[in-house]
Amino acid sequence: MIYVDEMIKNTYRVPQPEGRGAYIRLDQNENPDGVPQWLFDSVMEKVTPQFLAIYPEETIPTEKYAHLLGLEKENVTLTAGSSVGMGYVIKTFGEPGKNIITVTPSFAMYEVYAEMIGMKVVNMQYESDFSYKVENTLAAINEDTSIVVLVNPNMPVGNVYAKEDIKAIVEKAKEFGALVIIDEAYYYFYDQTSVDLVKEYDNVVVLRTFSKMLSIPSMRVGAIISNAQNIRYMDNYKPHYTVNSIGLLFVEAIVDNHEKLMAELNASYLEGKEYITKALADNGYETLPSEGCYVCIKPKYKTSREITDLLQENGILILCGKQGLTGWLRLTIAHKQYMEKFMETLLNIDKE
Amino acid sequence: MIYVDEMIKNTYRVPQPEGRGAYIRLDQNENPDGVPQWLFDSVMEKVTPQFLAIYPEETIPTEKYAHLLGLEKENVTLTAGSSVGMGYVIKTFGEPGKNIITVTPSFAMYEVYAEMIGMKVVNMQYESDFSYKVENTLAAINEDTSIVVLVNPNMPVGNVYAKEDIKAIVEKAKEFGALVIIDEAYYYFYDQTSVDLVKEYDNVVVLRTFSKMLSIPSMRVGAIISNAQNIRYMDNYKPHYTVNSIGLLFVEAIVDNHEKLMAELNASYLEGKEYITKALADNGYETLPSEGCYVCIKPKYKTSREITDLLQENGILILCGKQGLTGWLRLTIAHKQYMEKFMETLLNIDKE
Repeated sequence: MIYVDEMIKNTYRVPQPEGRGAYIRLDQNENPDGVPQWLFDSVMEKVTPQFLAIYPEETIPTEKYAHLLGLEKENVTLTAGSSVGMGYVIKTFGEPGKNIITVTPSFAMYEVYAEMIGMKVVNMQYESDFSYKVENTLAAINEDTSIVVLVNPNMPVGNVYAKEDIKAIVEKAKEFGALVIIDEAYYYFYDQTSVDLVKEYDNVVVLRTFSKMLSIPSMRVGAIISNAQNIRYMDNYKPHYTVNSIGLLFVEAIVDNHEKLMAELNASYLEGKEYITKALADNGYETLPSEGCYVCIKPKYKTSREITDLLQENGILILCGKQGLTGWLRLTIAHKQYMEKFMETLLNIDKE
Repeated sequence: MIYVDEMIKNTYRVPQPEGRGAYIRLDQNENPDGVPQWLFDSVMEKVTPQFLAIYPEETIPTEKYAHLLGLEKENVTLTAGSSVGMGYVIKTFGEPGKNIITVTPSFAMYEVYAEMIGMKVVNMQYESDFSYKVENTLAAINEDTSIVVLVNPNMPVGNVYAKEDIKAIVEKAKEFGALVIIDEAYYYFYDQTSVDLVKEYDNVVVLRTFSKMLSIPSMRVGAIISNAQNIRYMDNYKPHYTVNSIGLLFVEAIVDNHEKLMAELNASYLEGKEYITKALADNGYETLPSEGCYVCIKPKYKTSREITDLLQENGILILCGKQGLTGWLRLTIAHKQYMEKFMETLLNIDKE
């Protein structure tokens, strides 16, 4: 019998959904429209067979992205998606046997990565009204803590952490030699950032993704942001040539056209958000407050599973709540045309 | 002070070369021409902003690629490049404290990954004539062995392992519960494969890449091939959504058009190889035998460093030998037009 790492052997992984291309996708917090055609064209005109025959070069896109954040290239390393990046952070800074503090429900891969290196997971709970008491996280930090995860806004519940609370957590974590990961996957929907904290604290890592507002989940681009020493450690671990070259062209194009691009993406998103917020309220649907590009909705007549299945039959994918959100639906907020289609279909199927 | 994994902290990584786009690239075993335009166009016509807005789906490309190999999709997992894949293999099956047996010089990342999990590296040596005695590898396998690496053909020296030698190594490794990695990055240049061994042995992993003959290094696509149980273990470890969607479209296109594509790529390669082999011999250059898409060349008058620098001044990148190949040049074999340009330039600069 060959040796198999015991942690890996016993890991359970949830399969990712496939066959989604034919549906209106409102289940994974993607922007179904993708980037504007003009941005897409400006990237694609650079792509040739010869361009694709060169190993990727990350330095210039990394530098441009770092400058966009008001940082230096030494503060950033690009990753093949943010979920790959969180693996680098946990492997590099997670102390086996110690705790990672997170909130449940949240993004599942933190638990997977942490358990794979023998960390213990401390799952903080929401209140019964789905508010979250940040003092619970603060109180949980102690000498057994190695990493604290703040997904800001969190998902699927879209609660946020105020800057002063984040600072308090970072300072308490620092006392115990613990690292704080601030996952800003849903930055741009909620415009508060902790990126500046990496200048002030050596125990802060911020994660960003190009898969949500930036609309290229297929390209697998994320970023780890921290102080230069932490980035050097993670670069020791990171395999070379991880982000593909077209993804890197998109990074440059997104930075080079940032203001125009964000204005367009935001306008489309906000139009959809305004519509769906009002439509759900007007039709008497209970929802949870959210600062992310998603909203949890309580069906009125049918179960969340029935609604999810019926929506799928009608060509629309949304998420069926679980782990503390059983009975709820999670809808990705996207352009108004998709929100109208969703609302119309929901009203047709959520009946006695 | 925050905790940092001790192995990662002390890892040294060689930076990858950048700024290569303006040169004739004969240093990293890429095909400078890339894939044929017709294959490129057939992929790119499927790429739209909306397509890029969907998370990647690996099942169909994985299944198609597995069938091309005469295997099932359960025997394959795709990776963001082969060098990422070798990390998965070593992390999953490498036993900390035990040995990984490899040959020096060879692909450097095996050592990096192995040392990062606390394995000891046993570096087998070439003979003084750069032949390699496979019985040395066989003799080195013992109860301290966890992994044996056979890069077939190896690089930068292009020696190969015969199938019966590989089988003998696999069987001896099996006695000691050790895994054998057969790295076929340079398959297609040398058409012997060990892929069929994964049906017969549970301690064999074959690695393939789409970066060499298949000509899309920028897209970061590799494959791990093994028995279904081993693949399941590595899929426990592999982050989700690692290969980007355009890379996956290329996998499908390459499989769907395999015969036509390989005929074209091979014809171009063989024309270049025939030319450069004869030209080097005609001009009295000593070379090492190679079954890969590269050849080691001894300069006649100048040092290998001088030649490499002067070639670069003339717009051509090649590799300057090190680690046992000091004094040698390594040239990537590509289409005849590049070989002619290289030969002409070499003859101009390699003078007394």
